[in-house]
Amino acid sequence: MEKDMIVNPYEVKGDIDYDKLIKEFGVEKINNKLLERIKKHTKELHFMLRRGVFFANRDMNWLLDEYEKGNKFFLYTGRGPSGPIHLGHLGTWTFVKWLQDKFGVELWFQFTDDEKFLFKDKSFEEIQKWTDDNMLDVIALGFDPKKTHFIVDTRNANLLYPEAIKFAKKITFSTVKSAFGMTNENNIGQIFYTSMQAVPAIIPSILKKKNIPCLIPLAIDQDPHFRVARDVYPKLGYYKPAIIHGMFLPPLSGISGKMDSSGNENSASILTTDTSEEVKRKINKYAFSGGQPTIEEHRKLGGNPDIDVCFQYLRMFFEEDDAKLKKIHDDYKSGKLLTGELKQYTINKINEFLKNHQKKREEAKKQLDKFIYK
Amino acid sequence: MEKDMIVNPYEVKGDIDYDKLIKEFGVEKINNKLLERIKKHTKELHFMLRRGVFFANRDMNWLLDEYEKGNKFFLYTGRGPSGPIHLGHLGTWTFVKWLQDKFGVELWFQFTDDEKFLFKDKSFEEIQKWTDDNMLDVIALGFDPKKTHFIVDTRNANLLYPEAIKFAKKITFSTVKSAFGMTNENNIGQIFYTSMQAVPAIIPSILKKKNIPCLIPLAIDQDPHFRVARDVYPKLGYYKPAIIHGMFLPPLSGISGKMDSSGNENSASILTTDTSEEVKRKINKYAFSGGQPTIEEHRKLGGNPDIDVCFQYLRMFFEEDDAKLKKIHDDYKSGKLLTGELKQYTINKINEFLKNHQKKREEAKKQLDKFIYK
Repeated sequence: MEKDMIVNPYEVKGDIDYDKLIKEFGVEKINNKLLERIKKHTKELHFMLRRGVFFANRDMNWLLDEYEKGNKFFLYTGRGPSGPIHLGHLGTWTFVKWLQDKFGVELWFQFTDDEKFLFKDKSFEEIQKWTDDNMLDVIALGFDPKKTHFIVDTRNANLLYPEAIKFAKKITFSTVKSAFGMTNENNIGQIFYTSMQAVPAIIPSILKKKNIPCLIPLAIDQDPHFRVARDVYPKLGYYKPAIIHGMFLPPLSGISGKMDSSGNENSASILTTDTSEEVKRKINKYAFSGGQPTIEEHRKLGGNPDIDVCFQYLRMFFEEDDAKLKKIHDDYKSGKLLTGELKQYTINKINEFLKNHQKKREEAKKQLDKFIYK
Repeated sequence: MEKDMIVNPYEVKGDIDYDKLIKEFGVEKINNKLLERIKKHTKELHFMLRRGVFFANRDMNWLLDEYEKGNKFFLYTGRGPSGPIHLGHLGTWTFVKWLQDKFGVELWFQFTDDEKFLFKDKSFEEIQKWTDDNMLDVIALGFDPKKTHFIVDTRNANLLYPEAIKFAKKITFSTVKSAFGMTNENNIGQIFYTSMQAVPAIIPSILKKKNIPCLIPLAIDQDPHFRVARDVYPKLGYYKPAIIHGMFLPPLSGISGKMDSSGNENSASILTTDTSEEVKRKINKYAFSGGQPTIEEHRKLGGNPDIDVCFQYLRMFFEEDDAKLKKIHDDYKSGKLLTGELKQYTINKINEFLKNHQKKREEAKKQLDKFIYK
């Protein structure tokens, strides 16, 4: 199975072996010492850190060295707006919001509409529609409008393109070929694109005319962009950005690959705009279960939370309380908790979250102006 | 010798065989019928048309069909600002100005600062300096400020980049490899760049929300950009731009290659900022002569105007009067006109031109604002 694992910005498939990715990508696992160091500043640790959902990093210790010297960092993350937002996207951003709150730092949020137009069989207009739509979900998570700046690649090209060509000048086709698996048949926009993704990590440094450290929280499939660009930053006189890597929220169909809303939406993902009925139907019908085929067998043999999609959603996103999560884990494993009960608990948790999210998403329509960088 | 001919936007060398280029590039020679058709609208023919300095075209007959139906075209040309302007650049633009005057049309003038930054070993800042400098020479030629719009790729990226990616999506690396001779070691900005050069040919159509024909006067080395892009325009719903191709003004050193100010300036080119003394020195010292080694032999055998750089400058740019040019040609060929005399005549012509140009170049500093597109 592992042989089939592919993880890059343009393809994620197979059973994800995160330890193997750490080695292949040359990143560092987050260890207890680093967690303690983070906790010194944040007082408590986000459950995604406690549970290893954010599991790897580049240069976090350097970032904290700088922070402790009074050299505050900023956050940079982003979204490729090619379709609706699903729960898999919100995990990373929820964690980003926690970082913003705990460290009191700025966030630059990039909407890579050019990337999605270049890589997807969708029109420019459709991508623009999704850009505007997706902004609402980001705002709904409660980012600080005074400290959060949305940039859209094609709308802020005056800011991004002159810097992107400085990265591009130092990256050859050979390099992007090996980092992204490109061929001579890739279009020339796809080949150039990674330079646009490199830029936001230096924008505050440009605007404030001094070097400011950057921390990029991302799902690990995005790491190759920065693996390519990190060599270039120092050549242009900037710090290499630090990175903190998250795991993928699995699709409903099972714990291989990642949640994805671009394919068959029904069976793979739960969207932020799904009604409570849709959530119920999707979980009940599609969420891969680690339970036994019959109640009798389940009571006798118990379920496997490690491969149960609902349990993973609770662990990775919806059940913040460690004690409650442990009880669910143990009860499911022992057979005390049935699959139907676990599904119902998860449905309730998701719907509770979405009810609030959808309300804030509506309110976000009036707040767009505060977030868009001009 | 012909074997060594290389003509593409990034390299021009060898003896230029224009008939061979017509075949290789798949363009059409300008014939008398087309000249007559142009003359119907312009009353007289520019000497660069009469003498075949502008010698080939794509779709000029279509452009005139549209013009005669009342569908006015606009002009698009440009400059890669990597150094000072020399006489070779001014030839094309002088002809462009004539077209603007005769047809009363708009001109979009692109400064491809991104291209030059990506292809030259020069800093972004130096390229910006040349961009501002080069604008003065364009203005000095007398373009109509009400009908002329300067765009700079990195400064007008909000306008250009969103359109460039639409071209880029339809051009593969294979295509640019064969059109420009690129390899895997080209940087990814160079690979993308041709999409930026495609865009100005559709800007007026975008702004006016209707399809407007475009005519691109250029030196023939730039044709590959549009050979690549012309297939894409109709796919995006636009007309293919028509093109009119000019020959290269030869360097001082002889009639191979083209005048170029990026190498050893002294021996290759005459700059628009050269003093009359410098012009005199350069022509006398470097201008390749078609004359005989001694006056005696010259009187007896005559010179060869076809390979004489001064004669070519007169033919291609500085002697508008056909009768005078013919007399110089015949007298030089017969040996009546000596090389020194031909050089002095040319020096006078160039200095007369430059005196006026330099005055207007100074005045241009105050006019920049009227030309820069905002």
